Amino acid sequence: MANGIERPLDLLNNSRGKEILVQLKNDKQLVGTLLAFDIHINIVLDNTKEVVGGEVKRSIGLTFLRGDTIIFISPASSARKE
Amino acid sequence: MANGIERPLDLLNNSRGKEILVQLKNDKQLVGTLLAFDIHINIVLDNTKEVVGGEVKRSIGLTFLRGDTIIFISPASSARKE
Amino acid sequence: MANGIERPLDLLNNSRGKEILVQLKNDKQLVGTLLAFDIHINIVLDNTKEVVGGEVKRSIGLTFLRGDTIIFISPASSARKE
Amino acid sequence: MANGIERPLDLLNNSRGKEILVQLKNDKQLVGTLLAFDIHINIVLDNTKEVVGGEVKRSIGLTFLRGDTIIFISPASSARKE
Amino acid sequence: MANGIERPLDLLNNSRGKEILVQLKNDKQLVGTLLAFDIHINIVLDNTKEVVGGEVKRSIGLTFLRGDTIIFISPASSARKE
Amino acid sequence: MANGIERPLDLLNNSRGKEILVQLKNDKQLVGTLLAFDIHINIVLDNTKEVVGGEVKRSIGLTFLRGDTIIFISPASSARKE
Amino acid sequence: MANGIERPLDLLNNSRGKEILVQLKNDKQLVGTLLAFDIHINIVLDNTKEVVGGEVKRSIGLTFLRGDTIIFISPASSARKE
Repeated sequence: MANGIERPLDLLNNSRGKEILVQLKNDKQLVGTLLAFDIHINIVLDNTKEVVGGEVKRSIGLTFLRGDTIIFISPASSARKE
Repeated sequence: MANGIERPLDLLNNSRGKEILVQLKNDKQLVGTLLAFDIHINIVLDNTKEVVGGEVKRSIGLTFLRGDTIIFISPASSARKE
Repeated sequence: MANGIERPLDLLNNSRGKEILVQLKNDKQLVGTLLAFDIHINIVLDNTKEVVGGEVKRSIGLTFLRGDTIIFISPASSARKE
Repeated sequence: MANGIERPLDLLNNSRGKEILVQLKNDKQLVGTLLAFDIHINIVLDNTKEVVGGEVKRSIGLTFLRGDTIIFISPASSARKE
Repeated sequence: MANGIERPLDLLNNSRGKEILVQLKNDKQLVGTLLAFDIHINIVLDNTKEVVGGEVKRSIGLTFLRGDTIIFISPASSARKE
Repeated sequence: MANGIERPLDLLNNSRGKEILVQLKNDKQLVGTLLAFDIHINIVLDNTKEVVGGEVKRSIGLTFLRGDTIIFISPASSARKE
Repeated sequence: MANGIERPLDLLNNSRGKEILVQLKNDKQLVGTLLAFDIHINIVLDNTKEVVGGEVKRSIGLTFLRGDTIIFISPASSARKE
């Protein structure tokens, strides 16, 4: 599951084209397909949805997200509620 | 829909001259036509409108917006309420 | 209306000697004549007035304003209440 | 217990492949296996769990965590409630 | 009134030895004679007074003030209540 | 008591291997043995204890602490309640 | 009183070995003898006391204080309540 991750950005690189969950500092979450990122952790998501309490609140399509608003990023396939 | 986006700033470059939605850290949203941006994500919008709860609150015309106040930017054509 | 703006600072350059509206992060607005700015978006305004709810609260004359306190800057001629 | 720690990052280096506790600025805690880190203290955790009041709130699997959201990091084996 | 201000720091340079009003991010104001400043807008004031609601709250004499706590600086002679 | 301190980091250097008190921006205090620090004031503490109101709340053992969360650091031997 | 201050750090240099008042961003004040400082305004104080409402709350002896937590620094001899 964790093979091939030497540096933190390797996880983002492995997630290109896949769905990720992004936890923002303002307590909101975005879910979308990771298209691009840079060293500031600025990212572009496609098919982005804002999720509140597990429910989709709105669709915001293609989105450029500033890295300094992010707490964590997780591949959606690896996240499970308990 | 996501063709040609290698780096995050590519999405902004593709959006020049088009309407974008800008989500600010202070919970407000601006909608306007993207005229220019730089690597700090400082942007200039034309025909800018401040939107609160889906309604136009005021028109502020041409606007220089500091990048460090931005959470995300989305092409208006790709954003849909649900 | 938007001719000649290639980079964000072009809008500020075009606004020298003209009245601008400055929205601050602390929810206040300043209106004044733009005399000077730098790459940090530090600016100097003349005949500065603090505006709250559309009314002039106080005049503070010549003012040096730190860039990191600014959300957006708009030429006063392009801003209209709705 | 503290042998071999000359510089702060030595503790993170010694913790690769081991479970760590991460205290975030938003009062939440994450527990997971440290896979990678960089000089910004961006880290990647595997089998990440969000912990509130000593109880697992949710599992978020593989996670990229931005360094600027972290207060402290502690090897889970060295933390004891009292 | 605004002659000779090409760059923002020109206003501070013109204000050396004169009384200035400093608006801080914590809603307080300092009034004092500007002795020195640097590019971080760190400043030294003499005969500094903390002003709240137009009234002098306390005198703090010579003061070194960190630039990142400042919103705006205005020559006291140009500020008028309305 | 203050001999040999030319630069701020000299105090931290003198405190290696000794118990220090760390006041955090979130109003909490940590007490532990200083093992290492760097120029960002990232530090590693051993036998770390979180202290609230003078009482040990929990032990967190070895800890990597990010410098930007710190207000002040004091050798525990020099701190006295009054 | 203000002779010899060309640059802001000159005031700190003149205050070495003397008592200073430090106003912190968290509304607290520290009073102590200035031993050392650097360009980040990190400082070391000796015989440090935390002062709230003009009264000494606790003594914290030798203290390393991070510069980014400071609003202003004033030589104690120049501060007078009014």
